[in-house]
Amino acid sequence: MSGTRRDSTPPVIAFIGIGLMGRPMARHLLAAGYPVRAQNRTAAKAEALVADGAVFAATPAAAAEGTDIVIVMVSDTPSVEAALFGPDGVTRSLADGALVIDMGTTAVMATREFARRIAERGGRYVDAPVSGGQVGAEEKTLSIMVGGAEADVAEAMPLFQAMGRRVTHVGPVGAGQVAKTANQMVVGLTIGAVAEALTLAEAAGVSSAKVREALMGGFADSRILELHGKRMVERAFTPGGKVTTQAKDMHQAADLAQALGLDLPALALNRDLYDRLIAQGDGALDHSALIRLFVRQD
Amino acid sequence: MSGTRRDSTPPVIAFIGIGLMGRPMARHLLAAGYPVRAQNRTAAKAEALVADGAVFAATPAAAAEGTDIVIVMVSDTPSVEAALFGPDGVTRSLADGALVIDMGTTAVMATREFARRIAERGGRYVDAPVSGGQVGAEEKTLSIMVGGAEADVAEAMPLFQAMGRRVTHVGPVGAGQVAKTANQMVVGLTIGAVAEALTLAEAAGVSSAKVREALMGGFADSRILELHGKRMVERAFTPGGKVTTQAKDMHQAADLAQALGLDLPALALNRDLYDRLIAQGDGALDHSALIRLFVRQD
Repeated sequence: MSGTRRDSTPPVIAFIGIGLMGRPMARHLLAAGYPVRAQNRTAAKAEALVADGAVFAATPAAAAEGTDIVIVMVSDTPSVEAALFGPDGVTRSLADGALVIDMGTTAVMATREFARRIAERGGRYVDAPVSGGQVGAEEKTLSIMVGGAEADVAEAMPLFQAMGRRVTHVGPVGAGQVAKTANQMVVGLTIGAVAEALTLAEAAGVSSAKVREALMGGFADSRILELHGKRMVERAFTPGGKVTTQAKDMHQAADLAQALGLDLPALALNRDLYDRLIAQGDGALDHSALIRLFVRQD
Repeated sequence: MSGTRRDSTPPVIAFIGIGLMGRPMARHLLAAGYPVRAQNRTAAKAEALVADGAVFAATPAAAAEGTDIVIVMVSDTPSVEAALFGPDGVTRSLADGALVIDMGTTAVMATREFARRIAERGGRYVDAPVSGGQVGAEEKTLSIMVGGAEADVAEAMPLFQAMGRRVTHVGPVGAGQVAKTANQMVVGLTIGAVAEALTLAEAAGVSSAKVREALMGGFADSRILELHGKRMVERAFTPGGKVTTQAKDMHQAADLAQALGLDLPALALNRDLYDRLIAQGDGALDHSALIRLFVRQD
């Protein structure tokens, strides 16, 4: 069996993980004409997607059986491992030459290991984590950061274009997760920068709203200043991206830095700040709530 | 004498400090029809501006004599103090009700003190630091962050519009400098964020150019990622904004935080990193050279 499809019938897509992100992504694939076999740990979550035309599969193994493309969109690295290699995981039924695409945020070293184990079973692997959140998933405006072999990425490209807007092939397997890690680092540290700057302004008796406005359009401008800076000014911390998720990402980045023998002090500090934020009970808030660490709670 | 001009003859502008920034700014005022009396510590630097129509003044006192508006554009807080209150400073000849506008980056607490001393001598004070660098000054695209009384800012507004693009009245005297401090903090810390993220990518064996590309357009996007991130990828550190200037600004911000009783740990760390960069001999490079701290120099 060839790894690259030659016929023009759209391939059946096994889609593992139909949560807040996976559901709209799978829906875009259905809309683009792909048959989708959907699997989720909580079966009830697949109902709306079945109404949209997906076929429900009880286990990852059942979803992957006889398909050439398996997309995994689950919450963390252990969940990816379970979906792929667990007792009823994808590898129980993986077709020879099938392409496994992990679109979640998964640790870099684990990704390289998973790709090796999938290759041992005759499969191929692409990592393609996304940025843009639930809104991006729904509005098809996700950024997709892709790691994998040239031919595999080319094969997956029509799927990515059906689910997102900006697709970048960063490098070989794992490179997509490296880019995602870098993305989360820059997000966390820039939130920290804006939080400390606006705190200083307020403590100096100046309107943080006016300071934010003065900074926009200049060298200090960023998506974070625009979106998260606004939330800080208004103290409006409904997520968005949760503190607990940001903390998890910063730990993942710091662990990778350590594994590579790098001393990255601002990353280590930011990770500790997010841990402190969780410790003070703010874990469920939007990650822009970091500013609550620096403000006297009076 | 009234503080607000009623006639339509453009007022004579005393312009103290005709350096890399001040020269093009004063030239825009000349082009807008304002008579300019220019003063500089190094007289030779005023020559080109005299050729453009400015009148040279030997001292700040001589420049300010009989004028209603005095702009100060010098390098640091002690230089502002000397220009205003020194032996041949502006206050030796300050006209009653004259407006002093400090457009340099000056410490917040000192700014409030200077304004008080100018008011004691019958003058008015506006702080209006700029962002955008020499290119912004030349191309008239500066962001101008303004602190001062409503009427004084309104009077200065036509001058600001002749020199920059984005003018924000942030609040009372000192608020412009608070915004500039916040601006420099966000710039320094965002440079640090991008530097650590690209370092991690490179250490993980991935192209920092591709990672930067993958991050642009998403939540991690910023002017710093675009401009300074590119310099980091290319290891092209011709300034731009110098490491020594960034370090000075971070010290100024950290000193203000301390004076306000604030603990801002990412700011304190970033200040120390810039100090280390100077210690390793990189002070004259562009501030994006911060990435050189994290890379094994092999």
